[in-house]
Amino acid sequence: MESQIEELYKFIYPLAIRAGEILLEGYERTEKQVDIKGAFYDVVTDYDNKIEEFLMNAILAKYPQHKFIGEEETAKNNNVSKELTDAPTWIIDPIDGTSNFIKQIPHVSVSIALSINKQIVLGIMNNPAQNKVYTAKLGQGAYCNGKPIHVSNCQRLGDANVAYEVSLLHVHKESNKHIKRIYHVGRQARRTLAYSCVVDELCMVAAGNLDAFYIEDMYPWDCAAGSLLVREAGGVLTHPFGGPFDIMKPDLICAGTEALRKELEDVLRRADQEKSVGGDEH
Amino acid sequence: MESQIEELYKFIYPLAIRAGEILLEGYERTEKQVDIKGAFYDVVTDYDNKIEEFLMNAILAKYPQHKFIGEEETAKNNNVSKELTDAPTWIIDPIDGTSNFIKQIPHVSVSIALSINKQIVLGIMNNPAQNKVYTAKLGQGAYCNGKPIHVSNCQRLGDANVAYEVSLLHVHKESNKHIKRIYHVGRQARRTLAYSCVVDELCMVAAGNLDAFYIEDMYPWDCAAGSLLVREAGGVLTHPFGGPFDIMKPDLICAGTEALRKELEDVLRRADQEKSVGGDEH
Repeated sequence: MESQIEELYKFIYPLAIRAGEILLEGYERTEKQVDIKGAFYDVVTDYDNKIEEFLMNAILAKYPQHKFIGEEETAKNNNVSKELTDAPTWIIDPIDGTSNFIKQIPHVSVSIALSINKQIVLGIMNNPAQNKVYTAKLGQGAYCNGKPIHVSNCQRLGDANVAYEVSLLHVHKESNKHIKRIYHVGRQARRTLAYSCVVDELCMVAAGNLDAFYIEDMYPWDCAAGSLLVREAGGVLTHPFGGPFDIMKPDLICAGTEALRKELEDVLRRADQEKSVGGDEH
Repeated sequence: MESQIEELYKFIYPLAIRAGEILLEGYERTEKQVDIKGAFYDVVTDYDNKIEEFLMNAILAKYPQHKFIGEEETAKNNNVSKELTDAPTWIIDPIDGTSNFIKQIPHVSVSIALSINKQIVLGIMNNPAQNKVYTAKLGQGAYCNGKPIHVSNCQRLGDANVAYEVSLLHVHKESNKHIKRIYHVGRQARRTLAYSCVVDELCMVAAGNLDAFYIEDMYPWDCAAGSLLVREAGGVLTHPFGGPFDIMKPDLICAGTEALRKELEDVLRRADQEKSVGGDEH
């Protein structure tokens, strides 16, 4: 198994680098089109497709039996499915952080994961706007630009940099829940950040820039590679309420330490029991 | 006046570059000390003092009559005051984004502004972690690395990337106000971001990466250089409720367009009238 992962890593790594170059080309191109909203989305769709097709074609040319997990509408061939099987399966996000891509904010990433026997065995995340390539192979540690990275040892929410996406408030039926959580996390964490790029936020936990991160309602391709990276960097990553993380329905809390993850989980639980926030009772 | 500004710009620019090099040295040094909390703050204080002293000493050596606006505790000489006069006065933030500096998150900046006759006439913000130097001279436009920058033309909150610092919730007597605002901005803006670096957020508005930014309870040195940059980049920057911006008590809304600034102001006003958020009435 280890030699199979190594072979696939050596195969995919240069493709991930090339994918980042394509992303960067689009990122820089949008600079000239900042105010043409229609053109924005054309650029995103254009580069999203370009990167995805480049990676899928290259993978299928070498490994025609490999599978993919992806959005139905981007599925151009029969190898794309919505269910994870034991077969070698690539889980790819061509551009995570599309709103950042459009606005040249350097929190953007290509994310590539490989699952074998339903387990993520390698992950590469390339953020070309920051010149950072994060890599992980199962059981072999986490790296940024070839140097080992490690989660932080932060034990307390009061000392922690935590990312919580404020834009989760867009999910209308969930906005009451999120605002109560944001209130309590925002008051208790040392800093609460929001970068609008789940892949980058997972990389930042793995590298110790962030101490913890909560996210829900994501797709497998947002979290597959990053979930391996965080664990290989020594972090803990679970379902928000402590159960096992499910890559196919990726709601998650992750942190550098179990003590911090548990404290964040407790704060979320207590927030969920509030009737409202912002009133005089607080 | 213009030739005086030009002379002072030519004088201060290389010092701002050197100040960024000192900042970067500290930023990279902390990588080896990620988990030593005491050491963190020592590093911040050490580099904060180092950069401030370097800039003040160099300025006073050439212009001994120049004044400074700064924190009392960092005031090492009689030229530092808390009130803005007509004299040439430097308003310096040696490291904005100290929590990012500590955690190697690339939203950090040295900010240097010069006021003459109580008006900001030049501003330089150097973010060495992103290799970006933002510059503005009164009436002469805004630049990043020597290239002209311009705010976005975004007219609607629903299309806007807005920064609102979640960590304002730390101000306990204001946390009810902020959570109500975060709820409404978060739901209505296309994206709500929080980077924990006011200087960088002002630069991002000026360069069109962000479309709008709200902040309050800041110090003059957080906003002096950035306020000029945003205006020179074509943006609007006012007191949150439309009155003139006061550099000595810098609460502000800024945006690429007045239409967007006004819409954000209206959302904040309506949020301030809510009794609470997160309850079933929403």
